[in-house]
Amino acid sequence: MRELALSAPSGSSRIMLGESIDNLKSYCQGAGRIVAITDRNVARLYGSRLKGMDVIEMEAGEANKTTRTVEMIYQKLLDLEADRTSVIVGVGGGIVCDITGFVASTYMRGLPFGFAPTTLLAQVDASVGGKNGVNFKGYKNIIGVIRQPSFCLCDFDTLKTLPDGEMRCGFAEAVKHAAIGDAQLFSYLEGNWKKAFSLQRTAIEKVVHDSLLVKMRIVSADESEKGERMMLNFGHTIGHAIEKTTGMPHGEAISIGMIAAAELSVSKCNLPKKDAERLGALLKGIGLPTRLDAGGDRDRVLDAIRKDKKRHGEGVRMALLEGIGRARIARVELGEMEAVVNDMC
Amino acid sequence: MRELALSAPSGSSRIMLGESIDNLKSYCQGAGRIVAITDRNVARLYGSRLKGMDVIEMEAGEANKTTRTVEMIYQKLLDLEADRTSVIVGVGGGIVCDITGFVASTYMRGLPFGFAPTTLLAQVDASVGGKNGVNFKGYKNIIGVIRQPSFCLCDFDTLKTLPDGEMRCGFAEAVKHAAIGDAQLFSYLEGNWKKAFSLQRTAIEKVVHDSLLVKMRIVSADESEKGERMMLNFGHTIGHAIEKTTGMPHGEAISIGMIAAAELSVSKCNLPKKDAERLGALLKGIGLPTRLDAGGDRDRVLDAIRKDKKRHGEGVRMALLEGIGRARIARVELGEMEAVVNDMC
Repeated sequence: MRELALSAPSGSSRIMLGESIDNLKSYCQGAGRIVAITDRNVARLYGSRLKGMDVIEMEAGEANKTTRTVEMIYQKLLDLEADRTSVIVGVGGGIVCDITGFVASTYMRGLPFGFAPTTLLAQVDASVGGKNGVNFKGYKNIIGVIRQPSFCLCDFDTLKTLPDGEMRCGFAEAVKHAAIGDAQLFSYLEGNWKKAFSLQRTAIEKVVHDSLLVKMRIVSADESEKGERMMLNFGHTIGHAIEKTTGMPHGEAISIGMIAAAELSVSKCNLPKKDAERLGALLKGIGLPTRLDAGGDRDRVLDAIRKDKKRHGEGVRMALLEGIGRARIARVELGEMEAVVNDMC
Repeated sequence: MRELALSAPSGSSRIMLGESIDNLKSYCQGAGRIVAITDRNVARLYGSRLKGMDVIEMEAGEANKTTRTVEMIYQKLLDLEADRTSVIVGVGGGIVCDITGFVASTYMRGLPFGFAPTTLLAQVDASVGGKNGVNFKGYKNIIGVIRQPSFCLCDFDTLKTLPDGEMRCGFAEAVKHAAIGDAQLFSYLEGNWKKAFSLQRTAIEKVVHDSLLVKMRIVSADESEKGERMMLNFGHTIGHAIEKTTGMPHGEAISIGMIAAAELSVSKCNLPKKDAERLGALLKGIGLPTRLDAGGDRDRVLDAIRKDKKRHGEGVRMALLEGIGRARIARVELGEMEAVVNDMC
């Protein structure tokens, strides 16, 4: 097991890599009551291992990441008489972790909470960094707060039951972290992603550990996303537009978004063309999409980009690459984004 | 005008005493958009003075301090395209300020916000300290966060339209602050509360200023209420039970709650009997109730105290007085509370 520590204005987190969820309770010492929040799928797989905890189950899926589910959980916490001596633990993927963090941060003005992420996407990204929240009226994550979990326990064995498609989506975020902040991890992924994908222990541990180091370094410096944290949005500006309009899974959409951002990086930040090609080759090798399908509604994607732009003024500030492992924030105009998205069809 | 500064882990506040709400906009400099949240009553009185702001109106009253109203406001913020460049301002009493602070702290993971409290209760208490939130399923303030407003602007002229009953409720909290932390303010109130009540400028400014100093000193030392901040609950343990069961206004209920707590203080903390009598005389002089009315349902009050106790274990930790201007936290058993409440009927 390896341990990492994150310190940020809203709190500090211990992150345990390779720890078993059977030991979850030992990280909640002193709690009067431990309440696990999970979804039906995860409860079926791991519910019996959440010993000594009350369990609140939500329905799985993005459609349930709503204020309605938040209120359902508040009600169950009241029924359980959860109070300031209670600790809340989110056990599941990114949706469960996001909603747990928000509930725990707002119930009784904030209880301590932790996560046991059970997907690769949640382990390398969603469960670390303190952002949490829910969707509202079609706006993703528009309601939320920033507050660090007390702990995050990554049990790699829970990834064994994860479908390949979801593993790939987790790798998309790992590639992103490598691309913006760790050239050595990028090279490692090029040579060893298959070992990590098949959960060879040292390989998956290195990928998650080094990914989180990139994210933690950025979050510690700029928790509230006034500047540097925007680099974590590499691939997400166009990726979110694709996700929203096509319904493609998050990891797949940001894979395409990263390719588009790399194209812009070549013309705007002197990213060597061969570095853009390395990024494309790695994502493609992993089995992630790198082009918008001809069936994808390009005009709707462009329309979504324009809406995003409208909210942020004349142009959009995007994370772009100067090289593998080096990112910066640059202003991108609508015309430039349109050209790149046109090229992707 | 006098200015105070509060610094706490969740943020810093500027507090302007005796400033005009006509100058509200000048405290939101740099904002792309200013959105005022207020209620129908306050909008009728002061809406025309909220120039250069978008105004969101909620229904007045405790019954509307709900997650439903929160969602109504989220929707209107989306309609207005409020974003991270926006500043939210709550203009109204404690309910408006509480709900505004919660909305602003959770919309887009937190926008900057300020208050222009228009009731004495909100000026001496509710708008300062960073606690915010809403009721849920009958539990008061059970959903919320702690986050300091950027500024708080107290315009004493807005108190001119306040009914006497509401002024009295504000004085209850001012007396509380004096009782727990400022013997000099307590003496001043004994001699001069009428001047402050009639809004004689130096008197009302001193009462609000000195009250806030007590609160700010405590909040700065213990924002998250791990210890010292509990002293601000003086009169509130029994007061909340009375408020909940009788429907009495908050300030009136805590007036009775303070008398009960003073009785307990005499027996448990050696509070001189004459100090308890001074507290009773001051509250009575101001026109606040000091006894439970025979019509009040004593058994229901006792039942509510027991429920509160059940949630917190064997006994209850309460703020008690050692003398006028000096409080401490002490453990009080159910039997002791019952005896005192019995005496009050």
